[in-house]
Amino acid sequence: MSPGGRRAGDSGTRTAVLEAAKRAFGAQGYGATSVRAVAREAGVDPSLVLHFFGSKDGLFEAALEMPVDPSALVPGLLASGPVDELGERVVRTFVDVWDATPGQGPMLAMLRSSVAHADSAERLRGLLLRVVFRPLAQGAGAADDEADRRAALVASQMLGLAFARYVLHLEPLASATADELVPLVAPTLQRYLTGELAATPVR
Amino acid sequence: MSPGGRRAGDSGTRTAVLEAAKRAFGAQGYGATSVRAVAREAGVDPSLVLHFFGSKDGLFEAALEMPVDPSALVPGLLASGPVDELGERVVRTFVDVWDATPGQGPMLAMLRSSVAHADSAERLRGLLLRVVFRPLAQGAGAADDEADRRAALVASQMLGLAFARYVLHLEPLASATADELVPLVAPTLQRYLTGELAATPVR
Repeated sequence: MSPGGRRAGDSGTRTAVLEAAKRAFGAQGYGATSVRAVAREAGVDPSLVLHFFGSKDGLFEAALEMPVDPSALVPGLLASGPVDELGERVVRTFVDVWDATPGQGPMLAMLRSSVAHADSAERLRGLLLRVVFRPLAQGAGAADDEADRRAALVASQMLGLAFARYVLHLEPLASATADELVPLVAPTLQRYLTGELAATPVR
Repeated sequence: MSPGGRRAGDSGTRTAVLEAAKRAFGAQGYGATSVRAVAREAGVDPSLVLHFFGSKDGLFEAALEMPVDPSALVPGLLASGPVDELGERVVRTFVDVWDATPGQGPMLAMLRSSVAHADSAERLRGLLLRVVFRPLAQGAGAADDEADRRAALVASQMLGLAFARYVLHLEPLASATADELVPLVAPTLQRYLTGELAATPVR
């Protein structure tokens, strides 16, 4: 620890480490981020990072904590209006949450890590299906044998929207407001959640 | 060059370098791949890689060459059936092309690099909009002031489908055949290409 560095007892030290980790994972992804570099950035000894978070994996998990707990979003999305407007609420809520996070750090870190590391992909898959979109599809009335299909389709459009808007900066999606995105994308999500999925015959 | 290594005059040497580069960029992305490592993998001297491809960027460009030239897909997609079935042909054609590429190497390398490097994101943005989806939307009848919006929406769903299927392995999308994916996703693309985009009022 440097003489002027933070100590384990400092109030706010854990937060400082976590903020440094979020910046590092967000900017460089999982593979290129080291505990040592995060410690240096936060002005603490690497052993203190391990004291707080156990391992690089533990630090990563903690850094990915969303500004909003994603599992907590689901009951609100289901309860805040009619099920036939659920697609609109999903687009608006996710875009609002993403836009509220400076640089979209945690979400970009998850995308970045999941293309590079099978364990990160597994983690994101679980978050999307088990935590968010399967409960959402089930809450919207999907039968058990349909819920995964509906959830995966919703996840595919929301992943693609995030990728197009925040990674590739595809215009006009990148600069559109949530109000402008809702009528474009909500009908897709509404069909995936509650619509007829095999209306188009297989050719 | 190692004594048993390939030489500039060898037939197939350029191909061996390119195959090694595709594997390396596909497995590790742009940043973690070096000309030296590709040369070692191909059994040639790094100077030979630079002789063939000019630079790491040149090697990357060459390695990203699709099994099918994406710009060549557009006229065929437009000509091979009615415009109101274009969404189906887009899903089927892209899934077939992706599935035909072992490990989806070039596509995954593009996704991986674009989340890590602004220049790769710029390259993928140009490919998606200028080369593929804007010409497709215009060919389907989109007015000039609508074409980018339609193209970006199609790109968002196709990016998300690729991400869900090949990166996250979200089931049942990951194991679905093209025949099974078409009725699920084609209506989304059809609406983005030719449908009413503001049918849902902004709330």
